Amino acid sequence: MGNENEIDSPTARQKADARRQQMIRAALAVFTANGYVGTSTDELAAAASVSKQTLYKAFGDKEGVFAALIHDACDRVDDPFEPLAARMRDIHSADEGVRLLAVQFVGSIMDPRVLRLRRLVIAEATRFPELGSLFWERGFVRVAESVGRCLQILDDRQLLAIPDTTMAVHHFAGMLLWFPSNQAMFAGSAAPMTEAQLERVIDGGTNAFVRAYQPS
Amino acid sequence: MGNENEIDSPTARQKADARRQQMIRAALAVFTANGYVGTSTDELAAAASVSKQTLYKAFGDKEGVFAALIHDACDRVDDPFEPLAARMRDIHSADEGVRLLAVQFVGSIMDPRVLRLRRLVIAEATRFPELGSLFWERGFVRVAESVGRCLQILDDRQLLAIPDTTMAVHHFAGMLLWFPSNQAMFAGSAAPMTEAQLERVIDGGTNAFVRAYQPS
Repeated sequence: MGNENEIDSPTARQKADARRQQMIRAALAVFTANGYVGTSTDELAAAASVSKQTLYKAFGDKEGVFAALIHDACDRVDDPFEPLAARMRDIHSADEGVRLLAVQFVGSIMDPRVLRLRRLVIAEATRFPELGSLFWERGFVRVAESVGRCLQILDDRQLLAIPDTTMAVHHFAGMLLWFPSNQAMFAGSAAPMTEAQLERVIDGGTNAFVRAYQPS
Repeated sequence: MGNENEIDSPTARQKADARRQQMIRAALAVFTANGYVGTSTDELAAAASVSKQTLYKAFGDKEGVFAALIHDACDRVDDPFEPLAARMRDIHSADEGVRLLAVQFVGSIMDPRVLRLRRLVIAEATRFPELGSLFWERGFVRVAESVGRCLQILDDRQLLAIPDTTMAVHHFAGMLLWFPSNQAMFAGSAAPMTEAQLERVIDGGTNAFVRAYQPS
């Protein structure tokens, strides 16, 4: 399993990171196919082509793999909104700013990996409430706060008038994603949304949100 | 199992209907606890205190029970919007109409039985796409059309200006339910929303929707 010195060398560390990513990716596929309860650590190790010992060393147990999967996905979902906050200071209209946010937001949440994880967490959140709470706090709430910081800049610049930032984020997200995310959850495998449909959703959601929050 | 004449008499028919409801109610609890795959028809029959033969006669097989569960829940969800359409012709302002719809909509979808079914269908929609599609068409799309007919009346009366009814329904629903329904799916067992929180959601959603769709 490699000694301490080996793990400290850059190449070994990169190898360990790559193997961790490989196990996380494989785990999403296995959990999605069999459900959390129906998945064994044997299957998780086999799918990632690692020994069960390697899996245990990296994640502790099955719940540890699942938690790592959520952390990994949530970390990636949040990233793209950092650079957008800076752009909110430069754009010339509320429509331009909200549209930029909308494109990024819809793209992030409608990512097939994120949708698969969403389904998995919803399926298990009653039996494993701590996993549901982890996704909620690290994913949903964190992204909402990130979007809120961007909307706050548009409010500060008086391009929008937002009395309650948290509620405005929920309105923004709901207008954009209520239909696409439910469609993906219930009927997505039968008829996934096309790029053109998603563009229409972004367009309609941006227009309605700007109307709802335009300064009087 | 009762002969044809017995089933045709009103009392026997009522008994059969009551037993059917009893089986459907018990099935929701069992499916919720064990998942669809983890549930056997033995367990479904035992939970409803009926014989397996009675269960098979009423529903055919496990998938038949699940389909009946969805039909039953969706039929009940749709009912309350019929009388609201008539009220949309009498109310005096967009705010009054939208608020009435919002209270009914949030109450219907945030019903604990509906939320449990929603979680169950999302969990199984990849493996059983026809069950997901059934919920989508009989539940989601049907309720959306029902709400759309109400909003259309407010548009006809020029209390609102709605260029695209279907999209306006998605905006209405998303503004109201994006936060509460996701909270229920991911973190609901840890901290269910209070009545006061739901009232704030209804108030904020109504105000923002009316602003977004007010006639110019």
